This record gives sequence, structure tokens and C-alpha cells, in this order.
Amino acid sequence: MTNDCQFLEDLIHQDIPLTRAMQLSVRAWDGDSLQLAAPLAANSNHKGIMFGGSLYSLCVLAGWGWLTLRLRDGDLDEGHIVIKGGQIEYPQPVVGDAVAICDAPSAEDWEKFTTQFRRRGRARLYLNIRIPAADGSDAVRLHGEYVLHR
Amino acid sequence: MTNDCQFLEDLIHQDIPLTRAMQLSVRAWDGDSLQLAAPLAANSNHKGIMFGGSLYSLCVLAGWGWLTLRLRDGDLDEGHIVIKGGQIEYPQPVVGDAVAICDAPSAEDWEKFTTQFRRRGRARLYLNIRIPAADGSDAVRLHGEYVLHR
Repeated sequence: MTNDCQFLEDLIHQDIPLTRAMQLSVRAWDGDSLQLAAPLAANSNHKGIMFGGSLYSLCVLAGWGWLTLRLRDGDLDEGHIVIKGGQIEYPQPVVGDAVAICDAPSAEDWEKFTTQFRRRGRARLYLNIRIPAADGSDAVRLHGEYVLHR
Repeated sequence: MTNDCQFLEDLIHQDIPLTRAMQLSVRAWDGDSLQLAAPLAANSNHKGIMFGGSLYSLCVLAGWGWLTLRLRDGDLDEGHIVIKGGQIEYPQPVVGDAVAICDAPSAEDWEKFTTQFRRRGRARLYLNIRIPAADGSDAVRLHGEYVLHR
């Protein structure tokens, strides 16, 4: 799993140069849940909290990374991932370093997604990503829409 | 209006260091409509199109900048702007430099917003920001939720 983290971090830094300025890192992957991190200093705004654009980028890449690693573990890795949209909420400010967590969708949703991709060469998946506050409640939530196509 | 553009660009670069890595610039402000720009090279992904996180950041800052300049023109400039959330859609990839345009909300919505802020010290405003494709249709749309509080 450590190799997977390094693989994904190298991939993101190489593919999207801005993530180096964000000092984004891949923190953990257990085959089901992915954690991406970003330090406050490189992503702050004038209030000393994390910039909403960095928080969005961290979340959207946690979903993209989750799908990338999951596809790599399976047999759909010939697909291209496209981000189609998303709904972001900021219930609380992020006052320190941020960790975005993307958990696996339900087994049923994943099964529908892979079946549809095999059948049509194109399928849609919704992923929920969150950044916890210090007390464990959500500071940020992203409901992201991802499309995989051949 | 050129002075306003320089004011806002300096403010954004100073307040949010990541916008310097994005090479974000303030392109135009006519008192009603604000345009922010970002070059493809500093914001690209591996497909040679603009990274969805950069597109979101450009849009969300166009809304933030619009409100900042509009408040500065008026008499509500003691307020603090907070981004509460937003809905983003990417109907088309952005294959070149991007310009995000934030137009004024309706006069009625603006009036409600300012009245509520004066009365309660807190008010909510929705702004629509778009990034046009070469043919003028929307490549990106953000429906952003902004709160102004004392």
C-alpha cells in the first residue's frame, strides 16, 4: 500500500504541476479509503485558514486518486477519468493542515459502475469526499461526479 | 477601472499565495462584470487541458473579487466575505488560457442582499460565474454561495 501511495503521489505531481505548489501528499491507502494531505502554509488565505480553492482541489483529487488506485487494482485500468462536476460545502473553516478522505462507494454502486463501463464503455460514479475538523465533524464535503470512458 | 484591477490582483496575490503559482490575473472590471484569467501552462493536467481544481479556484475567486470590488464601490465595505459552498459543472474541457466571468446578480437580489446585511449584519448572495469556450458556450459554470458578515 505504501508503494501505491508513492505511485499516486508521483503521478499527481507529474500530471498536475500546481499540486507541487500545494505541497499535496498521499497519506494513506488501504484498498478502500484514500487520504490526501496539504499543509496550511502553502494553501492559506489572509485569514490564516485554508483557501477554499485548495480545499476543493484536495477533495477532487482524493476522488480522482481513489478511482485511479481502485481501477489499477482491478481490470478496468484502460479507462480515462473525467471530472464532470461537484457540489462543495464548507461547514467550518480549516485552521490547520488538511486531510481529505475518500471512502469507497457502496458495493452496489461500484458493481453498477463497473457493469455499465464494461457494457457501454462509459459510466458515471459519484464519490463523497470529506475533510474532518479537529473534533471529527466535517469541515468540508465534496459530492463529486466522475465519468470513466474508453 | 484599471486601478481597481491592479488593486484586486495585488490583494489576491498577497492574500492567497497559491494564486501566484496559478499566475492568476485580473483582466477587466467595468463596475458590473469582472474577468479573471489564468494561463493553461501553469494550470494544466496530463491531458494538456486545464486542471479542474484551477478552474474552480479561478471561478470562486471571480465571485469573491466581484463582491470585493462591488462592496468597495459602495458603503458595505466593513464586511467579511466567506465562501460557503458551490456547485460546479464542466460541460467542456478548457483547452487554452481561461477567463472566468462574474456578472452582477439581478438588481432585486442585490437590493435584498444589502438590505439584509444592514439589518442583520449577515447576508447571503449567490453568484454565477462562467468560463466560456472558444465558441462562446460555457466550458465551466460555478453557482457560488457567498456570505457577508460583520
